[in-house]
Amino acid sequence: MKEAVKIVTIGGGSSYTPELMEGFIKRYEDLPIREIWLVDIEDGKEKVEIVGGLAQRMWDASPYDVKVYTTLDRREALKDADFVTTQFRVGLLDARIKDERIPSLYGMLGQETNGAGGMLKAFRTIPVIGEIIRDMRELCPDAWLINFTNPSGMVTEAAIKHFGWKKTIGLCNVPTIAMMAEPKLAGKDPKDLNYRFAGINHFHWHKVFDENGKDLTPELIEHINEKNGGTPANIYQAEFPMELLRSMNLLPCGYHRYYYVKQTMLDHALEEFREGGTRAEQMKQTEKELFELYKNTELHTKPEQLSKRGGAYYSDAACECIRAIYANQKIHMVVSTQNNGAISCLDDDSIVEVSSIISAAGAQPMAFGKLPPAEKGWLQMMKAMEECTIQAALTGDYGMALEAFVLNPLVENNKDTQRVLDELLVAHEKYLPQFSEKIQELKAA
Amino acid sequence: MKEAVKIVTIGGGSSYTPELMEGFIKRYEDLPIREIWLVDIEDGKEKVEIVGGLAQRMWDASPYDVKVYTTLDRREALKDADFVTTQFRVGLLDARIKDERIPSLYGMLGQETNGAGGMLKAFRTIPVIGEIIRDMRELCPDAWLINFTNPSGMVTEAAIKHFGWKKTIGLCNVPTIAMMAEPKLAGKDPKDLNYRFAGINHFHWHKVFDENGKDLTPELIEHINEKNGGTPANIYQAEFPMELLRSMNLLPCGYHRYYYVKQTMLDHALEEFREGGTRAEQMKQTEKELFELYKNTELHTKPEQLSKRGGAYYSDAACECIRAIYANQKIHMVVSTQNNGAISCLDDDSIVEVSSIISAAGAQPMAFGKLPPAEKGWLQMMKAMEECTIQAALTGDYGMALEAFVLNPLVENNKDTQRVLDELLVAHEKYLPQFSEKIQELKAA
Amino acid sequence: MKEAVKIVTIGGGSSYTPELMEGFIKRYEDLPIREIWLVDIEDGKEKVEIVGGLAQRMWDASPYDVKVYTTLDRREALKDADFVTTQFRVGLLDARIKDERIPSLYGMLGQETNGAGGMLKAFRTIPVIGEIIRDMRELCPDAWLINFTNPSGMVTEAAIKHFGWKKTIGLCNVPTIAMMAEPKLAGKDPKDLNYRFAGINHFHWHKVFDENGKDLTPELIEHINEKNGGTPANIYQAEFPMELLRSMNLLPCGYHRYYYVKQTMLDHALEEFREGGTRAEQMKQTEKELFELYKNTELHTKPEQLSKRGGAYYSDAACECIRAIYANQKIHMVVSTQNNGAISCLDDDSIVEVSSIISAAGAQPMAFGKLPPAEKGWLQMMKAMEECTIQAALTGDYGMALEAFVLNPLVENNKDTQRVLDELLVAHEKYLPQFSEKIQELKAA
Amino acid sequence: MKEAVKIVTIGGGSSYTPELMEGFIKRYEDLPIREIWLVDIEDGKEKVEIVGGLAQRMWDASPYDVKVYTTLDRREALKDADFVTTQFRVGLLDARIKDERIPSLYGMLGQETNGAGGMLKAFRTIPVIGEIIRDMRELCPDAWLINFTNPSGMVTEAAIKHFGWKKTIGLCNVPTIAMMAEPKLAGKDPKDLNYRFAGINHFHWHKVFDENGKDLTPELIEHINEKNGGTPANIYQAEFPMELLRSMNLLPCGYHRYYYVKQTMLDHALEEFREGGTRAEQMKQTEKELFELYKNTELHTKPEQLSKRGGAYYSDAACECIRAIYANQKIHMVVSTQNNGAISCLDDDSIVEVSSIISAAGAQPMAFGKLPPAEKGWLQMMKAMEECTIQAALTGDYGMALEAFVLNPLVENNKDTQRVLDELLVAHEKYLPQFSEKIQELKAA
Ligand SMILES: [Mn+2]
Ligand SMILES: [Mn+2]
Ligand SMILES: [Mn+2]
Ligand SMILES: [Mn+2]
Repeated sequence: MKEAVKIVTIGGGSSYTPELMEGFIKRYEDLPIREIWLVDIEDGKEKVEIVGGLAQRMWDASPYDVKVYTTLDRREALKDADFVTTQFRVGLLDARIKDERIPSLYGMLGQETNGAGGMLKAFRTIPVIGEIIRDMRELCPDAWLINFTNPSGMVTEAAIKHFGWKKTIGLCNVPTIAMMAEPKLAGKDPKDLNYRFAGINHFHWHKVFDENGKDLTPELIEHINEKNGGTPANIYQAEFPMELLRSMNLLPCGYHRYYYVKQTMLDHALEEFREGGTRAEQMKQTEKELFELYKNTELHTKPEQLSKRGGAYYSDAACECIRAIYANQKIHMVVSTQNNGAISCLDDDSIVEVSSIISAAGAQPMAFGKLPPAEKGWLQMMKAMEECTIQAALTGDYGMALEAFVLNPLVENNKDTQRVLDELLVAHEKYLPQFSEKIQELKAA
Repeated sequence: MKEAVKIVTIGGGSSYTPELMEGFIKRYEDLPIREIWLVDIEDGKEKVEIVGGLAQRMWDASPYDVKVYTTLDRREALKDADFVTTQFRVGLLDARIKDERIPSLYGMLGQETNGAGGMLKAFRTIPVIGEIIRDMRELCPDAWLINFTNPSGMVTEAAIKHFGWKKTIGLCNVPTIAMMAEPKLAGKDPKDLNYRFAGINHFHWHKVFDENGKDLTPELIEHINEKNGGTPANIYQAEFPMELLRSMNLLPCGYHRYYYVKQTMLDHALEEFREGGTRAEQMKQTEKELFELYKNTELHTKPEQLSKRGGAYYSDAACECIRAIYANQKIHMVVSTQNNGAISCLDDDSIVEVSSIISAAGAQPMAFGKLPPAEKGWLQMMKAMEECTIQAALTGDYGMALEAFVLNPLVENNKDTQRVLDELLVAHEKYLPQFSEKIQELKAA
Repeated sequence: MKEAVKIVTIGGGSSYTPELMEGFIKRYEDLPIREIWLVDIEDGKEKVEIVGGLAQRMWDASPYDVKVYTTLDRREALKDADFVTTQFRVGLLDARIKDERIPSLYGMLGQETNGAGGMLKAFRTIPVIGEIIRDMRELCPDAWLINFTNPSGMVTEAAIKHFGWKKTIGLCNVPTIAMMAEPKLAGKDPKDLNYRFAGINHFHWHKVFDENGKDLTPELIEHINEKNGGTPANIYQAEFPMELLRSMNLLPCGYHRYYYVKQTMLDHALEEFREGGTRAEQMKQTEKELFELYKNTELHTKPEQLSKRGGAYYSDAACECIRAIYANQKIHMVVSTQNNGAISCLDDDSIVEVSSIISAAGAQPMAFGKLPPAEKGWLQMMKAMEECTIQAALTGDYGMALEAFVLNPLVENNKDTQRVLDELLVAHEKYLPQFSEKIQELKAA
Repeated sequence: MKEAVKIVTIGGGSSYTPELMEGFIKRYEDLPIREIWLVDIEDGKEKVEIVGGLAQRMWDASPYDVKVYTTLDRREALKDADFVTTQFRVGLLDARIKDERIPSLYGMLGQETNGAGGMLKAFRTIPVIGEIIRDMRELCPDAWLINFTNPSGMVTEAAIKHFGWKKTIGLCNVPTIAMMAEPKLAGKDPKDLNYRFAGINHFHWHKVFDENGKDLTPELIEHINEKNGGTPANIYQAEFPMELLRSMNLLPCGYHRYYYVKQTMLDHALEEFREGGTRAEQMKQTEKELFELYKNTELHTKPEQLSKRGGAYYSDAACECIRAIYANQKIHMVVSTQNNGAISCLDDDSIVEVSSIISAAGAQPMAFGKLPPAEKGWLQMMKAMEECTIQAALTGDYGMALEAFVLNPLVENNKDTQRVLDELLVAHEKYLPQFSEKIQELKAA
């Protein structure tokens, strides 16, 4: 029997931590845990203590004897870790507010992981993931890094390709949500379906085959605009054009709406912004309410409210992935991992989000084969945008950041493009040391 | 000494034919011509006769004895041709008016070779190039096809890759115009410069090195927004963002403005449209005036007015290319030809517009090597858009046409996208037999 | 519950058919069978009737009611088949005798699936697989084709890439035998191991990871020259050079001995030939003895002798694969299937032999990633040799056949090369209609 | 007018230096020279002084005033160089004797640039080219490195890809000799022909087109086995199999005989070795005689004998290349340069030997497009062998050296393979510091 594991969660003060605890508790028989460390920073001290308290109460109410530690000392926590999960948010929700507000003020999409906001989030996050890996190399050189900090694909690409941590797997709840909805839509048992996902994080397509090898994709496309069609709750459901989907014969992901129905999505987002401010501001309120709940020392389960949020199932995917590695389960999951030819029109060392087999040997991607021509073009362009973004995040190269902005279809290519980039850089100055020279120059101007 | 050649020009009634004649006359010593056939269709009968008359007068005023034939019988003309040039326009300027008007009415770019208009032009033109090649296979199986019918890149890709006419070379005046301007900007003798162009038609970049191997690209970038910076006269000169160009360290082509400064270009185009209608309507007037001039039996030279038009130097490039082949000159030209690895991020069998050596053996592209990441993404996306467009043009597949529209950055991805496509299909019904079933369905609805 | 299936075996008169029956019997609960058709040709009539009798007795002795049909009418058999397995041998063992004898007489390797013999077998077999597929297209358009006729990789490539039967899976016993041996060598439970195979049929490498993700490859390499190291019984176990294997850190397949220890293998093969004639002649004797056994109407189980032959576990692999498809098992198997990027240094449409997940949707290959440089070179060269061989088999192009011969490392590049090719073509005239013109020319000379 | 240049020749004591001088003298009008430095090592002191004396006499007899310096101080020489040419031989002819003798004793090919000998030469030479580049980076950071030290392709790949000296061009006389012979064979003016070379050093193919674009390749293939068919004098002219060449429709290079007619070439080489010892020993004698001639202070021209040696035209190619760069000539030459897609089945960063345009901007390779399948396989395998060899040369990795040996078709894959490698390593101990640990181990055993 294998030894029980030590789990470390960076950004442990997240409101989603109870989902993570619940996920571990229900998998404990396959995944015995020695201890759990919730790490946060000074600004998150109160939150990590509150949620750490709830976490401990959840374990205490379970049949299992697991100690939950909370700490602001990342290095202490990382020592001898087996699995490190990342769910931190550099600059907290206040930074997200800026990511969403500034583009919106110029009539662009203000969104957390797509468009200008997603790129800025990458700029802030990638240097931090580099620091975490530097610590891991020293303190837990054999640990797995399970990343679900957004933008999950770019952060995972930086971790594997640039910081060299091969044992990184990136996660997202979008494939999970689709794979929860589709068996119901098709009237099938989930275990009978065969999935083939290919793309990158928040920009992937998939096909589904049934227990007889029949391609269910055409049938599922017809359900795509339904309420329970598999799109995460936090994405506005503008109608996909059906003839487009029928032509490609692939199921898009929910985030494709930002690209395939761009103007409608933008109009809706701007209207929402004008009426209710940014999503992040709403999240802040929700979080406040959640932490009030968490303080209740009578509470020892995950509150129901958490399941209805856009981030639901992220933590569950992480637990599922960790169990599959630990227990060598060889199961299908959709994860961000090194391409290695799985999508043959992208480089071998790109990070892609694809159907993979998860075992003790890590994520083994399944070869998808050729994409139809339009999807190939979309994907190559988006990957190029990611590469420029990551490059800019690593080096603070302003020109490269501008190239990423101009290439991104959700940023209008205009004189405001550069202005939005500049305002965002200045607004996030505290978290963008790599851009400090340019930011000084912008502030001086 | 090689034999004098027979040249056939499809779309011979074009107002640009005098430039073509002038080009041949000034190269006659290296490129002796036996006879020239100007071919047109019934609707172009009057024009081909007028311009054919001028063409004959131009030759008669030259030291050379060349007979110009005008005909509506393409097959008669093609018999034993050595070089076939194509400058036809399916549906004439009236079709172009629709290509420009309909998208404009929906707030999209209405342009001849980019965006929705360019795609529709491809839909109309590609089947006709297929018919011409079918005739050539029978009547002049060894002839070279020198294409400058727009969209020149897509038409050339269809000719080579789909209709199998390997001896096709595609031309455009955009590289010519840049290579005319840049020596002046750099204070250099044109023959001293070394050019490295890479991309596709109307979407290429280049680098320039001087006689010492010094990279002049950074210096020339600083001149790019100047009046005589190398952009064709017909493209509005919105300012390129300098930090973007400095970052990529490549000289964009004039048409890149539609992509890099998209909103400004669109705003300007829509304003122009509101004020003066479509470009095509202005062209129609200009053409009318030109043909009035051409009728003058005293005229036996190319009128000066022609040089100021957007299409200037197209014919000259064709003459230059034909001479280089005939006289085995091994000179540098920028042409559309089979990639074969010249741009390693595109397929070997894609048609690209690159620096090539032109000789009796045809166009030999020079290997450009890796593009920077953003440009790679742009190019792969645009090539995918071209592939979908060509596929739709060949098959009449409506879904594929829609995929091309949604992928094209100059078409807004919205419910109007499909409406614009539908209106354009119906408007061009006469020239789109491959789409007839869908058009009937649209008309019935 | 799914319906019971109809299984058709082309080359049903093979001495291995009892293994196939045993395989189906032991899997019947997961794979219910309606009827089994054993198809053979006139020359195999007696054998198919003998083995068909044994087959029926085996089923009659089982708890299951399955009818075994024997027929010489392939089309009758194929009607409404669900799975077609191919184990035929064009020209029977007499053809194999020639494949082995003629190269041996010139001091070259005479082997069934490698070197000159394997190429000639491809020349004879590929046209026949084309005919079978032509019949299947008409008579059982939804059937799976499970090929284990050798050379299994090239025959599968012809079936999928050239004859267009996408639902083809190619099998071999070499990976099976390795995966039977290695758990014992490593002291592990078979289900705990994680395999990563990559290459082409009879020329693949693999890595093995244990239940903790530990790479067992280095440890298993040290066992490779042991008697039970995982090499099929029919391959002489010349010693692999250990420093070579340690450098590549991949487990080679048994057939790699012909390449990595070429001279020793050749010397041994020639000695065997001088002493005992060809393998095929020995097989003929063995087969004769087996069929004597099979005639015994008291026999209703697979005789033990069969398990010791080189072809053991081929049929078992076929049964395993068919069950995995039928029962949508999503299990790991090593099969020949379309590359699709799994081995990124080969074309997407090449057929490769790789770790795949087998389900109702067919074989989904797992992306292996980059091979080390030497193995990449070996593999690309061998795939090119296969491509030339297949091309020659399809067209009868003698020059292409010669290119394949000269490229194949097991054929000495010498004046005898061409002579051996010529003699083999003439010797197999009856089965090489595509080469008939060249053969007449050779015979006339 | 550009400034006169400083030229530095590493290995200046070579017997070929007079050819280099002659080449510069006859090109002086286009390529004015300031000074020439002949650099050698202590062991070459006498030779460099003798040949330096002749060199100076040659210039003194010319109309040009050029000073020739001889030195053992490489760094002094490199200071402010414009062009550095490399023609050194690590270990001198004595090392080559070992390269040729040891494999021959085991019945393998003992040849200077192919097989075991070529690989060992790479092991000795690559570290030295690294040292030269280290000096150049400091002392002449803008200089061009014109390499014709063998194995020219691998040395050039190391220089560009591993040591990062982008301004390196590799040369060889094989293409030159072919391009001298073929116009005569075809009855054409050299300037009328269009060449398309593709491959790697000593392993390339080409096509030739005439002034009408007609493919002369088939016609020239028929002359390939003739005495003046374009093969360098030092390669035994075993007959190429004509049907092989007709099938590929490419002209092989002379060195392809070692691969396409392997056994005959090997038999001949071994016979030559038994009768006359190694080539290197003969060269030693020839060199001795040449240096006797060079000592003659009356001699002030290149002696005729030099032109008949295998290395003739190497120096001339170097002069031609340097002039083309200096004078920005934009001419066709066949050189080793970075692939960049020119041969699309090899990596972009591989060094290939291809038709290129040479100008002040360096070598711009022309895209060749797809090779036929067999040649693709040959080339990919040979490039992989080169990659392993270079890797071993850089790191002293014995396993990698062994992988290169086993992959090389000119080394028999046998137990002797490793023995030959071991003996060669020990024999060259003095020049293989990177392998010292392994060599000590071998010597101890
Ligand atoms: Mn996500
Ligand atoms: Mn143009
Ligand atoms: Mn096999
Ligand atoms: Mn050479």
